[in-house]
Amino acid sequence: MPIATSDWQDKAQAFKTALSSKIPTSYLLSETPSTSTDDKVPVPVSTLLQSVLSPLEKEITSLDATALRDAVASRRYTSVEVIKSYARAAAIVHQKTNCLMAYFLDEALERAQWLDDELERTGKTVGPLHGVPISVKDHLGIKGHESTAGFVSWIGNHIAPKDGVIVSILRAAGAVFWVKTTNPQAIMHLETDSFLGPTLNAYNPKLTSGGSSGGEGALIGGGGSPLGIGTDIGGSIRNPAANNGIYGFKPTSMRLPKAGNFTALAGQESIVGAIGPMGKSVRDMDLFVSTVLAAQPWQMDTTVVRMPWRPQEVVWKNEGRLPKVGIMWDDGVVGPQPPMRRALQMAVEKLKKAGMEVVDYQPYKTKENWDIISSLYFTDGGEAVKAAAAESGEPLLPLTEWIIKQNSKVRTPHEHWDLVKRREMYRNEYASHFISQDVDVILCPSNPGPANVLGTSKYWSYTSIFNLVDYPSAVFPTGLYVDPEVDARDEKREFWSEKDEECWEAYSPELMQGAPISLQIAAPRWEDEKVMKALEIVSDIVRS
Amino acid sequence: MPIATSDWQDKAQAFKTALSSKIPTSYLLSETPSTSTDDKVPVPVSTLLQSVLSPLEKEITSLDATALRDAVASRRYTSVEVIKSYARAAAIVHQKTNCLMAYFLDEALERAQWLDDELERTGKTVGPLHGVPISVKDHLGIKGHESTAGFVSWIGNHIAPKDGVIVSILRAAGAVFWVKTTNPQAIMHLETDSFLGPTLNAYNPKLTSGGSSGGEGALIGGGGSPLGIGTDIGGSIRNPAANNGIYGFKPTSMRLPKAGNFTALAGQESIVGAIGPMGKSVRDMDLFVSTVLAAQPWQMDTTVVRMPWRPQEVVWKNEGRLPKVGIMWDDGVVGPQPPMRRALQMAVEKLKKAGMEVVDYQPYKTKENWDIISSLYFTDGGEAVKAAAAESGEPLLPLTEWIIKQNSKVRTPHEHWDLVKRREMYRNEYASHFISQDVDVILCPSNPGPANVLGTSKYWSYTSIFNLVDYPSAVFPTGLYVDPEVDARDEKREFWSEKDEECWEAYSPELMQGAPISLQIAAPRWEDEKVMKALEIVSDIVRS
Repeated sequence: MPIATSDWQDKAQAFKTALSSKIPTSYLLSETPSTSTDDKVPVPVSTLLQSVLSPLEKEITSLDATALRDAVASRRYTSVEVIKSYARAAAIVHQKTNCLMAYFLDEALERAQWLDDELERTGKTVGPLHGVPISVKDHLGIKGHESTAGFVSWIGNHIAPKDGVIVSILRAAGAVFWVKTTNPQAIMHLETDSFLGPTLNAYNPKLTSGGSSGGEGALIGGGGSPLGIGTDIGGSIRNPAANNGIYGFKPTSMRLPKAGNFTALAGQESIVGAIGPMGKSVRDMDLFVSTVLAAQPWQMDTTVVRMPWRPQEVVWKNEGRLPKVGIMWDDGVVGPQPPMRRALQMAVEKLKKAGMEVVDYQPYKTKENWDIISSLYFTDGGEAVKAAAAESGEPLLPLTEWIIKQNSKVRTPHEHWDLVKRREMYRNEYASHFISQDVDVILCPSNPGPANVLGTSKYWSYTSIFNLVDYPSAVFPTGLYVDPEVDARDEKREFWSEKDEECWEAYSPELMQGAPISLQIAAPRWEDEKVMKALEIVSDIVRS
Repeated sequence: MPIATSDWQDKAQAFKTALSSKIPTSYLLSETPSTSTDDKVPVPVSTLLQSVLSPLEKEITSLDATALRDAVASRRYTSVEVIKSYARAAAIVHQKTNCLMAYFLDEALERAQWLDDELERTGKTVGPLHGVPISVKDHLGIKGHESTAGFVSWIGNHIAPKDGVIVSILRAAGAVFWVKTTNPQAIMHLETDSFLGPTLNAYNPKLTSGGSSGGEGALIGGGGSPLGIGTDIGGSIRNPAANNGIYGFKPTSMRLPKAGNFTALAGQESIVGAIGPMGKSVRDMDLFVSTVLAAQPWQMDTTVVRMPWRPQEVVWKNEGRLPKVGIMWDDGVVGPQPPMRRALQMAVEKLKKAGMEVVDYQPYKTKENWDIISSLYFTDGGEAVKAAAAESGEPLLPLTEWIIKQNSKVRTPHEHWDLVKRREMYRNEYASHFISQDVDVILCPSNPGPANVLGTSKYWSYTSIFNLVDYPSAVFPTGLYVDPEVDARDEKREFWSEKDEECWEAYSPELMQGAPISLQIAAPRWEDEKVMKALEIVSDIVRS
């Protein structure tokens, strides 16, 4: 007897089936691999990938985007070879993490062939990303492809009539698009769960990929893409990058173009998201940002400030070659878990040893920050999100329910204006606070700990603080991973807050073992070049 | 028998009496001067002023701010001499135009003496505005002084605890503050009328000073201040500057700091005002803007984009020394009145003669523009404004009633978001349109005609269009004035719109005679340096 399914489940299933059917059968994994959740020590997806790829594919997927671009330009590999390698790699990472929502290899092969032909014909690359595969988050527009924003009701209704501005710029620079990656329902979890099911962490399947750019995090962290595009309104680039051991760069919100994105919250402009790169190296972050800005995106998207990329103008306080770094050991509300503390301590020791001036940085009104930002996300009380779910009949997922209950309600115009005034007051106070701390950049945790156990991510403040004040910020992998031997659970202690206790409770060295530990760097609004330069210097030293 | 007056009238009267009492009796005009409204040819206030001032005062008030600063720095005049001259000049212009709402000579004299002492003591000026008097619009904060925003209920309740950011920067640069100038009720008329009565045009008392920075316009246009600060959310710098024959520069909204302003609409961020200079020369516009930006206002006001003043980076399309200018002869909705057409024709002839490439520029969806901007000014349906008036019992003035009826209502969050989406779509369309026109800058009317007859200013689109798209824009006096001999009323014609007919009807060469005719220059968002440079080049040629 057939099991009764509702209409939304049929639609969701059809979407998944169509996606799976696009993946060549030769890329399907035949046996249950060793990343099974029953194993004691989880095997990273990237390690599994190594055992499956051909030597050429391994070589190609070992490179960062910059090296890949150089290799294609110098004709070591063709663009077709590159995209074929990543076609297999992405398919495999997807089978282990559920990170894709679209896969269009034919289109990509045609594009790659055209790039190869152009290189042959003209002797020149099309642009600074010639032949580089770039993965793209669900809700960003690629001509002819779906965006769902994690809603069943959007299936078939949000096929982009043209590329979003950032996609069109990257395409003109020579990028190849072949996959779109998952984001959670409403794009508003610090995990990635939707009608497609959860996207798993690339290092440990019991843990979340993070979110909302969790598909990108898992795909790149697992080795299935060299470079991707995410968006971030509360941590959505930085959190999944941190969780999956890769780099993520959230610019100041108005620096890179978002026109052509799809979201149920379009028109909400009191908290503005940022768009930016996720990838394997600092130089790839720089390649991405400098390429997009060289195209003068302010001509195409009027929300972008006319501010070319000027790394040459970065000057440090001490006028030397190293920034003065302020360490924010914690945010005053939730204490970091043991592996995060270990990573930050290691970083400080190495930075000091390298001759860097390192001082403490005091946190500033973290709770007030969350009260304001969470009040401003949904000034409609979450009605748009509820309506988008209700349209298909799919239920709101628990983390969707949770976020729209955080201080959200339908605001009158004057309640809204009052919140904007509070936000402005907070931003100016925070700017004074930053000046008082007398540092170039902040180095701090990216999250209280490593990736959370699936379904439990309910503390955003380590990242969302830099959304409210709109400070550019980035994360990098420290090279450390959770090790139950050294990262034992803390003794029960006096807690700073309810959240602090929850976070202490949630830490499990056993469940979290193998998870990468990442740190975050931030600088004042518009000082993106400063963050990029500090990211390079600090991550080089910390990872050395 | 005493006439019964209400409480708000008593308060308004007390405010006016207190203001008048601050003006030294020696500055009071004894006789009815020749600018009486009965005269056929009105005498400009600046002409009257010449007949009253001493030779030294005449000399001082003839200079622009840059020359004044140089003269003080080279000790030709003391700061005390300068402010004394402007104390008299401002008092006289006020008596003819009703342009002041605060007058604090004692404080200014003390400040000027201190500047003189510092120059004596150190041999150096305090900053690039050493000794320059700067007049300040009502709703901008100066420590210890009132802001009313044109409301009786605000009297006594909005005394700034500290300088607003822009005032503090100008003060640190050596400016001297001695007056605050009128703005209309709610700061939302294109005239200047409030419980203080109307502010009259400096050239013709039957006409409006314009608004909302009408006090600045009349004061500077009449010769009573060398340089002032205005704000502009629909034309409020450019309109009164144009009406009174002076320069006005509205920057891109996020370039100069507004923190510390007072407005009943604080928190409304969907249409953002700009703050900028009004004065006697292009070089003073540049002096003001470059001085404020040199102080890095983004450190003190987080709404300001971190964009230093970079005039050296301006490049014209033809790579020569002259911009390619697009002439927008009209906006497609309301045809310009005869003197405005005459001015624009003269400008085009002179620019062509000077070797400039001049082409036509098509207007773009002017009505749609007004529908959007007027819907977004008051997303509360004007409730905040009505409440501020009701608090004292003062009536809403007709132009206040009029503007809050323009497409305003209490918006739900989703109605608000939809308007923001429309605005974004319009901005991107307009950006494409601008690119399609292939020019460096737009030259167009600042208004359908010269200053309107008092109480009739109900067409904002020649200026407000550049608020919706947030294009920097500036006005300059062409050197032409309304002349009934040459600017005869047009024959009745087929009208483009109801507004067009109203505007044709409203033109009166007899009533408007002697009014200055100004033009406007605009360039895309963030291209403030381009507008400044074009303003210098174009106004030099047109006025030659």
